[in-house]
Amino acid sequence: MLYSTILAGGSGTRLWPLSRACEPKFLHPLTGTDRSLLQATVDRVSPLSAAEQIYVVTGTAHAAAISRQLAAVPTANILIEPSPKDSCAAVSLACAVLARRDPGAVMAAFSADHLIGDQDRFVEVIDQAVAAAQDGYLTTVGIRPGHAETRFGYLRLGPTASGQARTVAEFKEKPSLQLAASYVESGQYLWNAGIFVFAVEAFLAELARQRPQLSDGIARIADAWDGPERDATLAEVWPGLEKISVDYGVLEGAAAAGKVATVPADMPWSDVGDFDSLGQSLPTDESGNLLIAGQAEIIARDVKDAVIVSTTDRVVAVVGLDDVVVVDTADATLVCARSRSQEVKQIVEELRDRGHAARL
Amino acid sequence: MLYSTILAGGSGTRLWPLSRACEPKFLHPLTGTDRSLLQATVDRVSPLSAAEQIYVVTGTAHAAAISRQLAAVPTANILIEPSPKDSCAAVSLACAVLARRDPGAVMAAFSADHLIGDQDRFVEVIDQAVAAAQDGYLTTVGIRPGHAETRFGYLRLGPTASGQARTVAEFKEKPSLQLAASYVESGQYLWNAGIFVFAVEAFLAELARQRPQLSDGIARIADAWDGPERDATLAEVWPGLEKISVDYGVLEGAAAAGKVATVPADMPWSDVGDFDSLGQSLPTDESGNLLIAGQAEIIARDVKDAVIVSTTDRVVAVVGLDDVVVVDTADATLVCARSRSQEVKQIVEELRDRGHAARL
Repeated sequence: MLYSTILAGGSGTRLWPLSRACEPKFLHPLTGTDRSLLQATVDRVSPLSAAEQIYVVTGTAHAAAISRQLAAVPTANILIEPSPKDSCAAVSLACAVLARRDPGAVMAAFSADHLIGDQDRFVEVIDQAVAAAQDGYLTTVGIRPGHAETRFGYLRLGPTASGQARTVAEFKEKPSLQLAASYVESGQYLWNAGIFVFAVEAFLAELARQRPQLSDGIARIADAWDGPERDATLAEVWPGLEKISVDYGVLEGAAAAGKVATVPADMPWSDVGDFDSLGQSLPTDESGNLLIAGQAEIIARDVKDAVIVSTTDRVVAVVGLDDVVVVDTADATLVCARSRSQEVKQIVEELRDRGHAARL
Repeated sequence: MLYSTILAGGSGTRLWPLSRACEPKFLHPLTGTDRSLLQATVDRVSPLSAAEQIYVVTGTAHAAAISRQLAAVPTANILIEPSPKDSCAAVSLACAVLARRDPGAVMAAFSADHLIGDQDRFVEVIDQAVAAAQDGYLTTVGIRPGHAETRFGYLRLGPTASGQARTVAEFKEKPSLQLAASYVESGQYLWNAGIFVFAVEAFLAELARQRPQLSDGIARIADAWDGPERDATLAEVWPGLEKISVDYGVLEGAAAAGKVATVPADMPWSDVGDFDSLGQSLPTDESGNLLIAGQAEIIARDVKDAVIVSTTDRVVAVVGLDDVVVVDTADATLVCARSRSQEVKQIVEELRDRGHAARL
């Protein structure tokens, strides 16, 4: 049976003022139900992995909240990093700990803050990725691009690998709009959805080949993890680990060696990167409005295609505006043209410059 | 010397959520300074009337707050109505009380919630109106219309009365847009600014002629006002007083009898009827934005011609929107297309329908 590791990091500054450094987006119920993105991620993998086979990697800031939200996940499966070291260290840690608990394990890695619209298709896609992983590939899920998006990395397709999976010829960084359009038109590129499936030993072998220092450090930590020396070893080794993404650190090099496959998937997928993409990912009312109200009283009068979110019990009244984002929280309110949703990141920077650390 | 009576009534529902039934607009600092509209009205008349000659007529709800805001006005000059009876009763009460304290008084009546942009011109205009009042006219101030406005009543000009004053041939109700345009084009109509100047005896004589019952009731109350029977007389007489505006109740009939004059004035004047007119009345920044922030941190990124008001210490961030109104208060937030500012009244009605009386 598959192990599922959920990477719960990143604060999501483009979802300010909802997402905060102290309460990142994956803890919020941005799912159209009362489940948080993190809980929805666990729900999504539950047909594939029993609770004992679900792992979480996170930092010190959110571990306690995560533990409460995921009461069914064993606490021994919640792996807490002493400091952020990007995704390569996080994935490697989960692989290495798991390899010592169950050497033949096949593991999938998911982000805690994605939305996927078709549960049945999701299970099919992961099953196909597991098959490719069992054939030795480091396997990714590639999303057939619906439009020329510049916020994502892309995968260039190579020949068929095994089953439904294709090899990945190359990883491409976030492109310009023009380049993204040419990728989409060619039909030979997929969005890199940040979902990976592999035999843990296969991943660790590539890590050792490409990042020997990181591999050694992770191995020392994993050897100590389930014993009395975990804290001391973490304190000694963790600060020196290389900070790099798993794409740059391992997968690009593995792709160049023909060891990466991808399962092309046409399911609705969103990284909930900003309020605009949130509005595209969740069901809207007959006016195209997404209302996430909680206890708030929302009055929308002649409003279309808006995203209105409140975490308060206040009244939020919106009149005569289309394509607007309104987010109301205890200590901050955002009003933003929906097409400018990505600039929310700059607002957070400006607040930092003005000395409002408590509101970030 | 002139007596000035300030009529402090009306809640201003089109300025919700700032203006509330329990905290109407005239108590708020919507003046570009930290003075409330009410205080700014007193400041404006202070070259014309000493503090002892300034009167206020208000209801029970706001008398205490008014008394605090206007510490220099003698408490004996703050006339508190037991219940709202519209402007004819309010003006008549002030006139009648004043007539008994100073029979030869000339009195001006002002609204507590107007903004006037040119203080020197204002004093000149009122001086001219006092001259016409001393010639026996019930005198109004008429504003030369800057555009075809449908929210105001109009005055049709008649022949010269005395000095700069013209007679008023007719009062016109709020017109259609087409009619308003024809008024403006003719040059023969002025906005009725709701500013009146008259000898109190002249007004009371017209009241007695046109509204004998109301006149009798007011006279009974005024006779008792400065003695031990004020409360008993108010309790007996006030509830039965006719509820009518001073325009309908006295001035229209007086105009038909040739007894009303107007001083045409070209000064900037606003009734602060909604957030759009507030934005037109106060100085804006280089982007055309009016920011009334108090303790709030406001971030406006690529925002033009907006009206942003906050009474909280929260952050209000607005991104990429023009001509928008954002108002943030403790228990409600409004986001409104500026051109739709008048519809805020309907939001208040909807809140009432939904049972949110505490937020009205």
